[in-house]
Amino acid sequence: MNLAVSDRLKLILKQIEDFVTHEILPLESEFAQKPFKELLPTLAEKRAKVKALGFWGPQIPQELGGMGLALVEHAYVSEALGRSPLGHYVFGCQAPDAGNIEVLHQFGTKAQQEEWLIPLARGDMRSCFAMTEVDTAGSNPTLLRASAVKDGEHYILNGRKWYTTGADGSRFAIAMMVTNSEAHPAMRASMFIVPTDTPGFRILRNISIMGDAGSDYASHAEVVFENCRIPKENLIGREGQGFKIAQERLGPGRIHHCMRWLGISARAFEMLCQRANKRQIHGDGATLADSEITQLYTAELAAELHGARLMTLSAAWAIEHLGMSKARDEVAMIKFVVANTMNRIIDRALQIHGGLGMSDDTILSSWFRHERAARIYDGADEVHKLSLGKRILRDYRR
Amino acid sequence: MNLAVSDRLKLILKQIEDFVTHEILPLESEFAQKPFKELLPTLAEKRAKVKALGFWGPQIPQELGGMGLALVEHAYVSEALGRSPLGHYVFGCQAPDAGNIEVLHQFGTKAQQEEWLIPLARGDMRSCFAMTEVDTAGSNPTLLRASAVKDGEHYILNGRKWYTTGADGSRFAIAMMVTNSEAHPAMRASMFIVPTDTPGFRILRNISIMGDAGSDYASHAEVVFENCRIPKENLIGREGQGFKIAQERLGPGRIHHCMRWLGISARAFEMLCQRANKRQIHGDGATLADSEITQLYTAELAAELHGARLMTLSAAWAIEHLGMSKARDEVAMIKFVVANTMNRIIDRALQIHGGLGMSDDTILSSWFRHERAARIYDGADEVHKLSLGKRILRDYRR
Amino acid sequence: MNLAVSDRLKLILKQIEDFVTHEILPLESEFAQKPFKELLPTLAEKRAKVKALGFWGPQIPQELGGMGLALVEHAYVSEALGRSPLGHYVFGCQAPDAGNIEVLHQFGTKAQQEEWLIPLARGDMRSCFAMTEVDTAGSNPTLLRASAVKDGEHYILNGRKWYTTGADGSRFAIAMMVTNSEAHPAMRASMFIVPTDTPGFRILRNISIMGDAGSDYASHAEVVFENCRIPKENLIGREGQGFKIAQERLGPGRIHHCMRWLGISARAFEMLCQRANKRQIHGDGATLADSEITQLYTAELAAELHGARLMTLSAAWAIEHLGMSKARDEVAMIKFVVANTMNRIIDRALQIHGGLGMSDDTILSSWFRHERAARIYDGADEVHKLSLGKRILRDYRR
Amino acid sequence: MNLAVSDRLKLILKQIEDFVTHEILPLESEFAQKPFKELLPTLAEKRAKVKALGFWGPQIPQELGGMGLALVEHAYVSEALGRSPLGHYVFGCQAPDAGNIEVLHQFGTKAQQEEWLIPLARGDMRSCFAMTEVDTAGSNPTLLRASAVKDGEHYILNGRKWYTTGADGSRFAIAMMVTNSEAHPAMRASMFIVPTDTPGFRILRNISIMGDAGSDYASHAEVVFENCRIPKENLIGREGQGFKIAQERLGPGRIHHCMRWLGISARAFEMLCQRANKRQIHGDGATLADSEITQLYTAELAAELHGARLMTLSAAWAIEHLGMSKARDEVAMIKFVVANTMNRIIDRALQIHGGLGMSDDTILSSWFRHERAARIYDGADEVHKLSLGKRILRDYRR
Repeated sequence: MNLAVSDRLKLILKQIEDFVTHEILPLESEFAQKPFKELLPTLAEKRAKVKALGFWGPQIPQELGGMGLALVEHAYVSEALGRSPLGHYVFGCQAPDAGNIEVLHQFGTKAQQEEWLIPLARGDMRSCFAMTEVDTAGSNPTLLRASAVKDGEHYILNGRKWYTTGADGSRFAIAMMVTNSEAHPAMRASMFIVPTDTPGFRILRNISIMGDAGSDYASHAEVVFENCRIPKENLIGREGQGFKIAQERLGPGRIHHCMRWLGISARAFEMLCQRANKRQIHGDGATLADSEITQLYTAELAAELHGARLMTLSAAWAIEHLGMSKARDEVAMIKFVVANTMNRIIDRALQIHGGLGMSDDTILSSWFRHERAARIYDGADEVHKLSLGKRILRDYRR
Repeated sequence: MNLAVSDRLKLILKQIEDFVTHEILPLESEFAQKPFKELLPTLAEKRAKVKALGFWGPQIPQELGGMGLALVEHAYVSEALGRSPLGHYVFGCQAPDAGNIEVLHQFGTKAQQEEWLIPLARGDMRSCFAMTEVDTAGSNPTLLRASAVKDGEHYILNGRKWYTTGADGSRFAIAMMVTNSEAHPAMRASMFIVPTDTPGFRILRNISIMGDAGSDYASHAEVVFENCRIPKENLIGREGQGFKIAQERLGPGRIHHCMRWLGISARAFEMLCQRANKRQIHGDGATLADSEITQLYTAELAAELHGARLMTLSAAWAIEHLGMSKARDEVAMIKFVVANTMNRIIDRALQIHGGLGMSDDTILSSWFRHERAARIYDGADEVHKLSLGKRILRDYRR
Repeated sequence: MNLAVSDRLKLILKQIEDFVTHEILPLESEFAQKPFKELLPTLAEKRAKVKALGFWGPQIPQELGGMGLALVEHAYVSEALGRSPLGHYVFGCQAPDAGNIEVLHQFGTKAQQEEWLIPLARGDMRSCFAMTEVDTAGSNPTLLRASAVKDGEHYILNGRKWYTTGADGSRFAIAMMVTNSEAHPAMRASMFIVPTDTPGFRILRNISIMGDAGSDYASHAEVVFENCRIPKENLIGREGQGFKIAQERLGPGRIHHCMRWLGISARAFEMLCQRANKRQIHGDGATLADSEITQLYTAELAAELHGARLMTLSAAWAIEHLGMSKARDEVAMIKFVVANTMNRIIDRALQIHGGLGMSDDTILSSWFRHERAARIYDGADEVHKLSLGKRILRDYRR
Repeated sequence: MNLAVSDRLKLILKQIEDFVTHEILPLESEFAQKPFKELLPTLAEKRAKVKALGFWGPQIPQELGGMGLALVEHAYVSEALGRSPLGHYVFGCQAPDAGNIEVLHQFGTKAQQEEWLIPLARGDMRSCFAMTEVDTAGSNPTLLRASAVKDGEHYILNGRKWYTTGADGSRFAIAMMVTNSEAHPAMRASMFIVPTDTPGFRILRNISIMGDAGSDYASHAEVVFENCRIPKENLIGREGQGFKIAQERLGPGRIHHCMRWLGISARAFEMLCQRANKRQIHGDGATLADSEITQLYTAELAAELHGARLMTLSAAWAIEHLGMSKARDEVAMIKFVVANTMNRIIDRALQIHGGLGMSDDTILSSWFRHERAARIYDGADEVHKLSLGKRILRDYRR
């Protein structure tokens, strides 16, 4: 297992880190105060700069205009980008588009790729992913209810989804719908491309989350399909392949989240250390950094972060060299380990900031609110722990 | 130590719980969606009903128009009110007015009481408390910088404060200002009544906290004093008594917070149990309540909550029967124990709600954000743990 | 709920604490170094002194020669005794005899009481309790295998049990055996008095536990019943009542353990504080007590211990005033809360003692080893958490 | 950073694992029941077999007769050996001899090497390391008191040490003594070779630890130096170099412990999984492995163990390729991370084993007792956390 950073990557990383520091971090206070929509022009400029530098789409295959980095390489880049909530968007590797690009690249027909994949990979349009349904556990495929019924040359879609990230402003959705309700649970559903201007597709609301409904990319919608009629050519892969494709999509999707979370964790950890050195607690100039309690927690979190990073790199290496199915246990582990490590680091950084941490004068309060979801989406902690624990224990059954 | 609920209190409690359930909880979605200012007329009606029922000001002395409950009794009532973020406000026992009432009742001159205490206790005006300063540790009195300088018949106040809760809409502030900078650290400051319409007093901003600046009572301001001139009769107690009064104010203030947090905890725990019973995880109708993991966490949190409640009641009993100074260790304990128990229960309730918990469709996300501050204000966890630990260890020094 | 210590009890407590300090604690190093058997003469002397003082059998009914304390009172006494591993034995309230006394007092025939109960309560003999079987979960009554078959005027017992505490040196065992294998799970078993000199009853071994097989009262045996024939008059209660009696026995048994664990916790906590004040860490005389980390953990553990004590007292009050079945949830809570709190306090006290804590120069290492079992016996943590969690969640099912 | 296992190492590892499984694990019950001394002949046979296979001294330089593995390679081998408490001894890489070999190899004179190093590396004698003193913090060099005073051609040693592992049966000790009490704290002490048959050197006792004083290699002595006169040629390196040598010795020593702990952890984890699959909890054959709680903890511990292993390998790589001083933070991290992970895994494995886990019928209870010390020796958790936290925070000071 070789986790080394090549000299070539070192150079790239340095430039990307500088870009994040000088071009993206300064946007943070605007991000905190304005609707995302209003940042779009500025972000478009930044994206143009990134393209000019040759860093667009670190994980996107070169034939689609990206850098085509290997997964371990992307882990390092993604951590650098994750230091800002805008990093991945500016570099064209944001979820859920990154996952949709992979799906269309791997499973899309040539026609689908030309119409949807190419402009998506270029950043000329955005997309969303409609899978999660209200009131049923996303982890259980048998509970899915939204459906697509074939009607001649079309499918007619009906149902409701929520937590469809970035639906607001998307050009199309990839939707998971039941097509074969009587089939084996793993074969019940299929994936479809649904242009968002299709009659019958409607955004009910941007869900108000942690006090804010957001807008455009920074939003999560509840969407409804009401006799939404799409051409049968919009089926991705074959009927019944929906969950299979989702598995291929979510596995790497999870590690992409982990990589980004490492960036958040690293930045929050830095903020913790910086603030501790600044915050006076005694008249003699002693700061929180001089307090043993701060030192204790700093050491513990540094070790946690170091471990989480190694585990993520190791999982990336395993996906790349052994394949997704052999990497499954490692991916399950990092999904819950990195999410929880990030949440603990944010929490401690906030605590060290005191009242300032509660305020929106730093990015911490935004992370505290929104990154709490990391322990829920793409499989809650408990779901991953149970399935991992079961698999491990089964190996010892005689 | 008698923690029993008298029969008389049982009757009262039952009525108060019903009132909270039927009159206050239904306001929760409005509270989540509208500025607090817009709720004021409705809340005024509810307050009138509470007065008509004889439940106004549970902790306010009877001579000031309250119920005059003993502290252990108030603990039970306060938990009932804490189930809604509006409960204490509607019953006239919200912070920081409750603390200000105590200060004026105990230390105010007759003139001060007539002008400020009586209308405050009646709920005819609101007040705020300006103590915390930006960038210095509130726990260390030697770091306080805002000052009041005597000038004939007046004091001239200068400085900046933040986290002045509810300044927006307050009729007056009680402000802690350095009057004797060369004195012993504990004798450097004094408390003043500052009418908010005094020239030189200004609300710089309602601080944006966890994504929301709030308004009126539901806000925390940054305020500035610029050559703010007040009559010398507005001094509370004597010069240099500021910290002494603050101690008298903050001790009970802390237990009042704990009582309210128990209400939040109890309600969040209920929501956890209800949601677990509703959330299907299998096609056969099995719910999250059938999962051993849910059962495990439920049991652990139930025990934590039970312990936290007993500790709070015990501390209330100690304050009442042994006095604040002998109850000091118990108050320090509950400050961090109850805050952390509440935070863990909210976190777990949110996790059980999944995506719904992240959304503003329930009150949980609001509590997740705003009650995080419980581990910071009125002495951060670490501050209380250190001072308590020191006191305990000192007793074993030979 | 009145948890007060009466003036009468205060006087008693003071004397008992003094007795423990001056008469029992000095035996600790002998206890650590010698087989228990060799301590018996000294312990007999101490018991005689206790009887002379009128403190024998704090929980034993007065008609049997004990003090007949109420349960809340006994909680205070038991904590005082728990400070030494010999306290309960010296005062005649040690498990499993205490439980056996209750069983015979409540369910024994007059003949059984005369032959076994009276000398047992007096401390003239010891007894053991044979219930747990190797390899099956004690928490599940359907898995019990040892059996008693009626044969005319006798029962013939066959089977194997382990963790039969103090079998070595006991005059009789109370044994739980399957008599009605086809009955409802809760009605399958019965309890019998088995004199240890009955042919066919045999101690296979004192189990080596944590490096030591122990002897006499300080041992846990594996015992075997091989065609062990006892008169049918030795049945306790009626056939099939075994589990019912066990429930009556184990509920109070659990709280007795908790009370004792509080004593261990209190003593270990004291040792922590004393050692922290003694252990130099700097040349300037600073000790571990001056370290913020020590202060932090001390405060956290003090709060845990205070909470655990209140919960135990509250459960005792509930058993006394509301009955065992209404106190069931509280008893489940303290079983796991107090056991874990004790384990954490012992662990931290050991850590503060460093190498000394690992050695047998203090009592801590013995507690670290042997009190680990508290999270296992009489229902493992997980068993109590699951059943408690289930009961709570069921109440919210609609 | 390349953590890969070469094909050559894979072959070796496989053979070593088989050897441990078939030749060493079967000795475990003897190890639990007999004094170590009685195992010596059997162990000598095993050592001979290991030598014959060419696996003697995996970490010992080839010129001294060992395998001369690189540190990352040794990490893998050491984990394999750690599965048995006898593994390292049988392969000749046990502490403290391994550290003493490094010291003599790096700092010994040619004469010292011939007399002591060569037979030590061959396993023909054993040695011990006398550094820790009673009652003072080993982490603070200014508190050391035992002294060596030059007297012509000799040094005269006086003082007392404890936790001198394996002194019983050792041919010589390496002792850390104050030679220059007035010097800079880091320059006060020197290291000496003290043959154990030197008059004035005496083993006061094998300390009774966790109930057992042990013997021979499996013991930790309190030793005394009373006018113990040794030739001046027995000084290692130069006067005042003691702490410098200790640093060189303890850094790698710590990672050697971590590697061994990984082996213990891996084995305890396996035992957990095996027992969970065997332990019936329901009549229908369901086992603890079917319980969600078991699955939850299994997953969490698997992730912890995986993280701890990666961190240890990464630290080994860093020591090898960047040098000890650049690896310092990583070594500090693994010292507390791996020790705590091991302790948690042992604790959970014991819990899964229930009563069996408390007994000496498995190796778990021995590990539970003796490996608790891992959080104390070679720098307690708190010591490493504080120094690491300080270093990290200092980097952010402006």
